[in-house]
Amino acid sequence: GALGALGLGLWRRAAAERRRDEGEEEEEEEELRFMAPPVSGLRELRRRRRELRSRMELLIMETQAEVCRALAALDPGAAFAVDTWERKEGGGGISCVLQDGDVFEKAGVNVSVVSGLLSEGAARQMRSRGKSLKAKDGKVPFCAMGVSSVIHPKNPHVPTMHFNYRYFEIEEADGTIQWWFGGGTDLTPTYLNEEDAVHFHKTLKEACDKHDLKLYPKYKKWCDDYFYIKHRGERRGIGGIFFDDLDSPSKEEVFQFVKSCAKAVVPCYVPIVKKHCHDSFTPEEKLWQQLRRGRYVEFNLVYDRGTKFGLLTPGSRIESILMSLPLTARWEYMHTPPASSKEAEILEVLRNPKDWVH
Amino acid sequence: GALGALGLGLWRRAAAERRRDEGEEEEEEEELRFMAPPVSGLRELRRRRRELRSRMELLIMETQAEVCRALAALDPGAAFAVDTWERKEGGGGISCVLQDGDVFEKAGVNVSVVSGLLSEGAARQMRSRGKSLKAKDGKVPFCAMGVSSVIHPKNPHVPTMHFNYRYFEIEEADGTIQWWFGGGTDLTPTYLNEEDAVHFHKTLKEACDKHDLKLYPKYKKWCDDYFYIKHRGERRGIGGIFFDDLDSPSKEEVFQFVKSCAKAVVPCYVPIVKKHCHDSFTPEEKLWQQLRRGRYVEFNLVYDRGTKFGLLTPGSRIESILMSLPLTARWEYMHTPPASSKEAEILEVLRNPKDWVH
Repeated sequence: GALGALGLGLWRRAAAERRRDEGEEEEEEEELRFMAPPVSGLRELRRRRRELRSRMELLIMETQAEVCRALAALDPGAAFAVDTWERKEGGGGISCVLQDGDVFEKAGVNVSVVSGLLSEGAARQMRSRGKSLKAKDGKVPFCAMGVSSVIHPKNPHVPTMHFNYRYFEIEEADGTIQWWFGGGTDLTPTYLNEEDAVHFHKTLKEACDKHDLKLYPKYKKWCDDYFYIKHRGERRGIGGIFFDDLDSPSKEEVFQFVKSCAKAVVPCYVPIVKKHCHDSFTPEEKLWQQLRRGRYVEFNLVYDRGTKFGLLTPGSRIESILMSLPLTARWEYMHTPPASSKEAEILEVLRNPKDWVH
Repeated sequence: GALGALGLGLWRRAAAERRRDEGEEEEEEEELRFMAPPVSGLRELRRRRRELRSRMELLIMETQAEVCRALAALDPGAAFAVDTWERKEGGGGISCVLQDGDVFEKAGVNVSVVSGLLSEGAARQMRSRGKSLKAKDGKVPFCAMGVSSVIHPKNPHVPTMHFNYRYFEIEEADGTIQWWFGGGTDLTPTYLNEEDAVHFHKTLKEACDKHDLKLYPKYKKWCDDYFYIKHRGERRGIGGIFFDDLDSPSKEEVFQFVKSCAKAVVPCYVPIVKKHCHDSFTPEEKLWQQLRRGRYVEFNLVYDRGTKFGLLTPGSRIESILMSLPLTARWEYMHTPPASSKEAEILEVLRNPKDWVH
């Protein structure tokens, strides 16, 4: 695959030169908003601009660029490395990673747009609640695209944030298209800060409430249930929203909802980073952060459906899937924080999730 | 459970006092060899001394003590913390952990002896190659015991070592006892040292050859196949031996073979630690070690049958299962060592396992 890390500046210069040569002035403005050229090509996306697949691909490209720009502005000494990669079996992706910056330990924002043929079993596994499916010769044409991101900051007072918004289509034997959306945004603090928790959940609730007042409570609970580290009896973090298999009321309405969620990522998270990235911290606080990073690894490798599905899928790009792992993590045997400590305070909330907004 | 960490010295003193009170002088010598009193009790084990279950429990207790003593002698500033724990559903264990010593980053040697009732499905899952099984009312009485250990040293020139020897019995509806052994010893170096690899494999081969010349080649290959990180296309380390479901030629012969393997742990590993624990190393070598630790975590959480089985088993002791994880680990996006580097040398061997002895 084309794994050469392209600096954003380099790509822009190359793209600008190509445009000058080909007289593609009109595409310049749109292309410059993105971290790299879209997998399906801007011309193709523009030609099929009314199709939801194209609109979703533009949304995930836009979200990637928005989040990368917002984070890069917070960590001026660091820069996102941009990798474009192709999948032999069809499609490809763009991985943007900032590693070992001043503010961020590891921040990854990944876009992938893949398509091809799935086995009937694999197609069924893609949906968390198995829907019936009629395959032609045991093979199912599919298209999957999404933006996913995990941001691990250095300072233990700045929480880790994860989001993922994705869209799937599979084609049945009779030509019917099954489509659905999935996604969510969730926060994993090392220490509890109630004000931050409320801000994060409130911003998500506002994004949901624009579409239907029932969405936030439902997806908040789904998030608490999904990010559960069963063997520890703990959630990974203080939640957010999570949903999967979303295929009603209509493609357009679900897309608009997903768009609102994607647009909420920066306002959810950036104010929290700004507020705490210069907080002082002790070596003990850093150590607790590292232990919590270990739990993050446990969830992602043992339970996360996306990670497991990715690791088992032939031709998937392992480095982009495991981008979610922290730069460093720690496991101490029998570590138990003292009662009434700040460490015990966050554990309590991870064991018994709270409602942060009503 | 009784999780209070008892220093070895404390337990010995308490045991000696109890013995003086109860006049149990005869048990003193044997008991002092162990890290804590055996789960089944010394008297009970002595009463049933001809039964294989008792002999195996004594062997795993002896192995635990031998390995802990040998490692503690190499790291004089540190000491093993000894935890005894009980399982509500039946049985218990003894976890010995040395953390953050001068020589060892994290060394754990765990004994567990558990029994009770399994569901038919769970009983079948315990055998890697499903054997037929007749259950009474869907429940299967079982007994499982083993010693397992992972040793993560600080110095990147000292390899990580893992071993595990275990024995299972399950009782069918008609009273027939199915029994089998499993186990193995394997090495995970950060850098390749051919002399060490040959010493390690040669010591294991000698232990196997005493019983049957076919065993080493067969279990060496099984080890390379088992410790495979599929999504990376790499083995976890340079192998050793691995076997499972061993139930022939006879209980006695398999037990004697397992005993030879268990007795080989110290001579396999200790000379390698002694040879390298004072080697100088660079920050770059330490960093490569941390990246390899990340791969160790990936194998254990994504693929290892024992870990997965443990995490899913109700009432299992999570801290003892995850004792195998390193104290610290690291994941860097797209880390690729330069060609012909020492880092590339070990990767080559992990991708294409070698025969170290013939």
